[in-house]
Amino acid sequence: MTRKAAPFAYEGLDRVIHERARLSVLTSLVSHPKGLSFVDLKELCALTDGNLSRHLKVLEEARLVEIVKGREGNRPQTLCRLTNSGRKRFLEYLTTLEQVVRDAATAVETRNAAEHRGKLASAQS
Amino acid sequence: MTRKAAPFAYEGLDRVIHERARLSVLTSLVSHPKGLSFVDLKELCALTDGNLSRHLKVLEEARLVEIVKGREGNRPQTLCRLTNSGRKRFLEYLTTLEQVVRDAATAVETRNAAEHRGKLASAQS
Repeated sequence: MTRKAAPFAYEGLDRVIHERARLSVLTSLVSHPKGLSFVDLKELCALTDGNLSRHLKVLEEARLVEIVKGREGNRPQTLCRLTNSGRKRFLEYLTTLEQVVRDAATAVETRNAAEHRGKLASAQS
Repeated sequence: MTRKAAPFAYEGLDRVIHERARLSVLTSLVSHPKGLSFVDLKELCALTDGNLSRHLKVLEEARLVEIVKGREGNRPQTLCRLTNSGRKRFLEYLTTLEQVVRDAATAVETRNAAEHRGKLASAQS
């Protein structure tokens, strides 16, 4: 389906990424390229242990996220981070998300401008 | 939860609005303030009859969308359009969506700038 035929279909909004909690996790991870611990991720996204575990599992199975062994000072630490393909897919998703914001903003501005013209016209009549 | 405590929680991403098909429908409707027929909406969003009906029902129950009687030339026509409160809630949702796009874009730019500095440093050494 082309954008012309169905301009509001937004097929690039990958459902694995679009779900709210997973969108939170992925935005946290793209902002922390070295990775985040489970505890940090939980706090940044305001998720419960159970919810974060469940969504991380979906993201791991989709190969968007990987769990790696890192170090915090002398202490070994388990970190969640984006895979390379996860980063690529997230950026593709963002392109469509930006389109949604742009389409909606254009609609709002067009309407505001029309209302403004309407007010000017009635003030002049 | 404040944005400072959980900066990636994005609590403003109302689940009724955020679901992909409903986001399509709402963006179509905000772009067509006079309303859209079921057939036009279906085509603009590339949805099946069943899917569109199901999602419109959710949006109507949440009082985001209303079904009104309009006219297409001489012919009576049923139109879907945003309610006033639906428009308001959709605009609030958009504020958070813009924040997601901005956070992700900042992360991507920061990383690109760091990579660029890295390449310059290795070219100079």
